Amino acid sequence: MAPITRLVLDVLKPHDPGVVPFTTQLGDLECVDAATATVVEVDETVKTLRVTLEGDDLDLEAVREEIQDLSASIHSIDQVACGERTVDDPLLGY
Amino acid sequence: MAPITRLVLDVLKPHDPGVVPFTTQLGDLECVDAATATVVEVDETVKTLRVTLEGDDLDLEAVREEIQDLSASIHSIDQVACGERTVDDPLLGY
Amino acid sequence: MAPITRLVLDVLKPHDPGVVPFTTQLGDLECVDAATATVVEVDETVKTLRVTLEGDDLDLEAVREEIQDLSASIHSIDQVACGERTVDDPLLGY
Amino acid sequence: MAPITRLVLDVLKPHDPGVVPFTTQLGDLECVDAATATVVEVDETVKTLRVTLEGDDLDLEAVREEIQDLSASIHSIDQVACGERTVDDPLLGY
Amino acid sequence: MAPITRLVLDVLKPHDPGVVPFTTQLGDLECVDAATATVVEVDETVKTLRVTLEGDDLDLEAVREEIQDLSASIHSIDQVACGERTVDDPLLGY
Amino acid sequence: MAPITRLVLDVLKPHDPGVVPFTTQLGDLECVDAATATVVEVDETVKTLRVTLEGDDLDLEAVREEIQDLSASIHSIDQVACGERTVDDPLLGY
Amino acid sequence: MAPITRLVLDVLKPHDPGVVPFTTQLGDLECVDAATATVVEVDETVKTLRVTLEGDDLDLEAVREEIQDLSASIHSIDQVACGERTVDDPLLGY
Repeated sequence: MAPITRLVLDVLKPHDPGVVPFTTQLGDLECVDAATATVVEVDETVKTLRVTLEGDDLDLEAVREEIQDLSASIHSIDQVACGERTVDDPLLGY
Repeated sequence: MAPITRLVLDVLKPHDPGVVPFTTQLGDLECVDAATATVVEVDETVKTLRVTLEGDDLDLEAVREEIQDLSASIHSIDQVACGERTVDDPLLGY
Repeated sequence: MAPITRLVLDVLKPHDPGVVPFTTQLGDLECVDAATATVVEVDETVKTLRVTLEGDDLDLEAVREEIQDLSASIHSIDQVACGERTVDDPLLGY
Repeated sequence: MAPITRLVLDVLKPHDPGVVPFTTQLGDLECVDAATATVVEVDETVKTLRVTLEGDDLDLEAVREEIQDLSASIHSIDQVACGERTVDDPLLGY
Repeated sequence: MAPITRLVLDVLKPHDPGVVPFTTQLGDLECVDAATATVVEVDETVKTLRVTLEGDDLDLEAVREEIQDLSASIHSIDQVACGERTVDDPLLGY
Repeated sequence: MAPITRLVLDVLKPHDPGVVPFTTQLGDLECVDAATATVVEVDETVKTLRVTLEGDDLDLEAVREEIQDLSASIHSIDQVACGERTVDDPLLGY
Repeated sequence: MAPITRLVLDVLKPHDPGVVPFTTQLGDLECVDAATATVVEVDETVKTLRVTLEGDDLDLEAVREEIQDLSASIHSIDQVACGERTVDDPLLGY
């Protein structure tokens, strides 16, 4: 299988745990080299995060499980990149 | 024939298979070095993906067959680049 | 004659041949190092393509003939660059 | 734990201490390599600062305590990056 | 005299000669290293071109004469750069 | 104390001294490596300048005194960066 | 005195001399390494130019005199940079 090198996820997260432990837990996954979470919306009970994960061979199921263990859920998968290098979409600029 | 080095496709995909297995299946094609899929629209029964493929010599027919095997279809081809290097369109910026 | 290093063309093309064989045929011309075609408009019977060609010494007549052989026509020439290097227009950004 | 490499914080700060001692105090924390504070809003009694901190292993609690010692408070955490390198969110451009 | 290294010209050109021979003729001038012409407006009898010329020591009179020999005329000079290197206008971005 | 590496100031300055002697006087301060002043607003009796100062260890008090000696005043401090390197705010782009 | 490394000037110039001799005369000043003039407005009797000058140690008085000798005048000074290197204003992007 072509290894997944980037995942961009829309995640719904309750206010607890906070965005910092949430992100570092994802960063602790063995398949994740770098994780960045940006808060894009704050509602009464949930936060919407854009989560970008990069690695040499990301494991979606391990990511999904970790997110569920953190009481959060993947609302949508916005971008997937795989292969021996990461290519941006030239018409979208990323 | 001048080898195709980049294809940007608009793809209609049912919700199943998901965007991750869809993208990695394309990335598994021998001619594909890197594949990136970005979800640009979500409707009730289908998702519209922008799919960017790069390689040294992309095989459109192999790509099209794989997409059909994944129950999806190429809605349109948005950009094709071929030759010994990849040139961007200077007026569009990509 | 100063060699032409870049041509940006607006091309009208019937739906057949498709944009992929159209682009690779242009890329096959001896004078063309790289060819990129982007679909910018789709009408009932024709597609409008922006075609960017780069090479060390592009031959406009060979390009025009090939485009005609492919049942298409150059609607307009949007940019021409020539000389020992390619300079962008600083006020337009390309 | 995956080390935190970047924190972007929204901070509410009374007018005293000023933004310069505030920023240098944060920069003095052992875990902080670089700190940048930008004033984004000025109200009668408080200033809203965007604070970006980078380091090899940022300690959120040390940062939070220092901010409280400076009579200010973290209003929200806007972005967290962790891992062996820092990845930007490709869809947001940062 | 400080050598002129870049000229950006607004040129009015009848439809004949075409933009390709027009640009290569300018590129043939001994003082011109690179010439790029972009079509910015098309009227019934004339085209408006933005022409960017770069060289080590551009000769405005030779350029003007060549443009007149090509039945065209300089409508305005939009930018001139001279000196031992080319500096962009930092407030305009070019 | 973490050394200040960049200060961005909003300065109100009477028309005399002019922006050139004003900037070079700031540039003469021992702690200042580079100073750039941009005029952002001109009123009847004052000019508003955006002043960017960079150095290895900027001394705010020396800067403030010099500005006062030049009959001007710091209206606000817009950005402060300190530490062993200068980090931009990724969400603001600077 | 900290040497001036960049000056951005708004200049009002009668139509004669033209922008090319005007710019090259400025480029001829011993303190000027590079001069770029961009026409930003054309009125009946004057042109407004944005003039960017760079050098190791620009001499404002020599620049002003030369501009007056060319029948033009400095309408305003938009930016001044001085010091051992040139720093851009991070909030304005230049």
